[in-house]
Amino acid sequence: MSGPVASNPVLVEVVRGTIVESRHVGAIAIADARGRLLLTLGDVERPIFPRSAVKALQAIPLVESGAADAFGLGEDELAVACASHSGDHEHIEAVRSLLAKAGLDESDLACGAHWPVSERTTRELMRAGRRPQAIHNNCSGKHAGMLAASVHLGLDPRGYERPDHRLQVMIAGIISETCGVRLDQDRMGVDGCSVPTWSLPLSALAQGFARLGTGEGLSPTRAQAAQRLLRACFASPALVAGEGRFDTIAMRALAPAIFVKGGAEGVHCAALPGLGLGVALKVDDGAKRGVERALSEVLAALLPEARAALADQLEGELLNWRGISVGRIVASPALLRALVALDATPRRKAEGAR
Amino acid sequence: MSGPVASNPVLVEVVRGTIVESRHVGAIAIADARGRLLLTLGDVERPIFPRSAVKALQAIPLVESGAADAFGLGEDELAVACASHSGDHEHIEAVRSLLAKAGLDESDLACGAHWPVSERTTRELMRAGRRPQAIHNNCSGKHAGMLAASVHLGLDPRGYERPDHRLQVMIAGIISETCGVRLDQDRMGVDGCSVPTWSLPLSALAQGFARLGTGEGLSPTRAQAAQRLLRACFASPALVAGEGRFDTIAMRALAPAIFVKGGAEGVHCAALPGLGLGVALKVDDGAKRGVERALSEVLAALLPEARAALADQLEGELLNWRGISVGRIVASPALLRALVALDATPRRKAEGAR
Repeated sequence: MSGPVASNPVLVEVVRGTIVESRHVGAIAIADARGRLLLTLGDVERPIFPRSAVKALQAIPLVESGAADAFGLGEDELAVACASHSGDHEHIEAVRSLLAKAGLDESDLACGAHWPVSERTTRELMRAGRRPQAIHNNCSGKHAGMLAASVHLGLDPRGYERPDHRLQVMIAGIISETCGVRLDQDRMGVDGCSVPTWSLPLSALAQGFARLGTGEGLSPTRAQAAQRLLRACFASPALVAGEGRFDTIAMRALAPAIFVKGGAEGVHCAALPGLGLGVALKVDDGAKRGVERALSEVLAALLPEARAALADQLEGELLNWRGISVGRIVASPALLRALVALDATPRRKAEGAR
Repeated sequence: MSGPVASNPVLVEVVRGTIVESRHVGAIAIADARGRLLLTLGDVERPIFPRSAVKALQAIPLVESGAADAFGLGEDELAVACASHSGDHEHIEAVRSLLAKAGLDESDLACGAHWPVSERTTRELMRAGRRPQAIHNNCSGKHAGMLAASVHLGLDPRGYERPDHRLQVMIAGIISETCGVRLDQDRMGVDGCSVPTWSLPLSALAQGFARLGTGEGLSPTRAQAAQRLLRACFASPALVAGEGRFDTIAMRALAPAIFVKGGAEGVHCAALPGLGLGVALKVDDGAKRGVERALSEVLAALLPEARAALADQLEGELLNWRGISVGRIVASPALLRALVALDATPRRKAEGAR
């Protein structure tokens, strides 16, 4: 469980004054749909929990089962089923609508409650003297999607979050097939929202995202389901995360060239359908600031237009409580070197491979 | 600025299911007042910013200058001057009282505003439709103390936060003398609250905390000032942090055997006057959960009674949004091995050294 592990390279440095104050180590894999690794940095074979980064894969049964059509789900409802949302009104509305179309309501959600990611909505709840409910949980859309799929499949929606529920078994199968990894029970953890999360290597996750984005290596039905979910996310990037957040900013500027989805504990994945690539990163310590900064640099290296779209993220300026600039979050020399090499060869390789 | 650095050992592991999901690397120094290192783990000579961990040193001029006596400050006001407080009513009251006794008010604070650490007070502010003010900043007590010291010393309180203000020069001198490190300009960074923070090695910081706790190696006046500040913190541990927070829990249970103070970006220091020791830790990635878990283990190894007092911290259970146990934050094998060695020899050495 806690044997020695190879030490990963520093990906991101937090600079204050003239010194590096903090460091984020981690690993990165970029792969195509056949699993060929075009870039690896750090240990990309160590299993990691993808957490919310694979919500689009977890939402596949909602479309593939026919539930989305049967319930007449629109793009907003599909986007929020793939989301780690901020709990703003538009998110709550989309989740409620998804639940209602499946004949369910908030009381069926098993995700637990937390204060909304959105400060604005948190302020409104506090102002009204209210507590957060399960619907405010950033995962409530995913849970609503799981509930709707269960109902359509004729499964008892109660216990839909449990690893032995037919829907979770189906989702594990989809993750396993898409990423090319056998998911034994010892790969299972329980996520923050109580559904199973399955550990797998970054290399496999990157391949899975290449397949998710391109449809290559998936059955036609699954490829169509994936495309429909990604189109829904591209249509409303604000529903997938929320205002001011990385995934919303990146997809609003760059979709359909990229699909991006972050997860807890420093995981982030991206699909670049036009390049036929998938990207998977994990910062070992779990820091969001680390993985988002590293991913910005990777995306800028892969897509020239990402440099302008993610300028604030790449600048990484740290302001203190009075708005004074006190430092910067920068890509490490090791990451920059790896990306220079990527720029020189692998992208051409990837293009040749298609 | 960003040259290669030796890679520090894993101190803390975050376990989910059967795997280590995340890891915190870092370094630890335990020293006596003469600077003899009784334990080092990782690179303890790399400069780090101590941030709020040295607030007690930054508060020394408030006592040493005679300001505390002249203004008739009580223990609550001295404790909050050393605090990273939660912004609860008792903190706000102590800061306001300190400012008023020096003839100042909230408008003199240069720390900037952030929502209180305390969820309760944040809820109250939001409920009232209010925004946080500088007084809610966790550093407002430190700033009030700096202002009061400036006034008593006959200095213009305006600009008290600037590195060239006489008070900040004095504070840099105190940190330099206590920790035995020359503080050139290139060691300076600007803290989140806009005052200077000075980088120094963990080895020096540990020695400084041994001196802070014991008075050894300090002038009699400074040793008395340090004792008075620590006594104030021991009298009201809730003022130094807040309900549910590490420093308050640890000092409420263990004072006067330990003084503990955390800082931003994964720094934590402790003084153990009875053992003649100082402790300094930095988790490289800046994670509070990492450094608090590691420090709990260090304190439990040094003080048998700390194991019961910090039982929850040592248990490190991770609950999800529904209160289900999903994992644990544990000390790494490397940390446990180092502490076994500590238990066998250095403590006796330290006792012999006194």
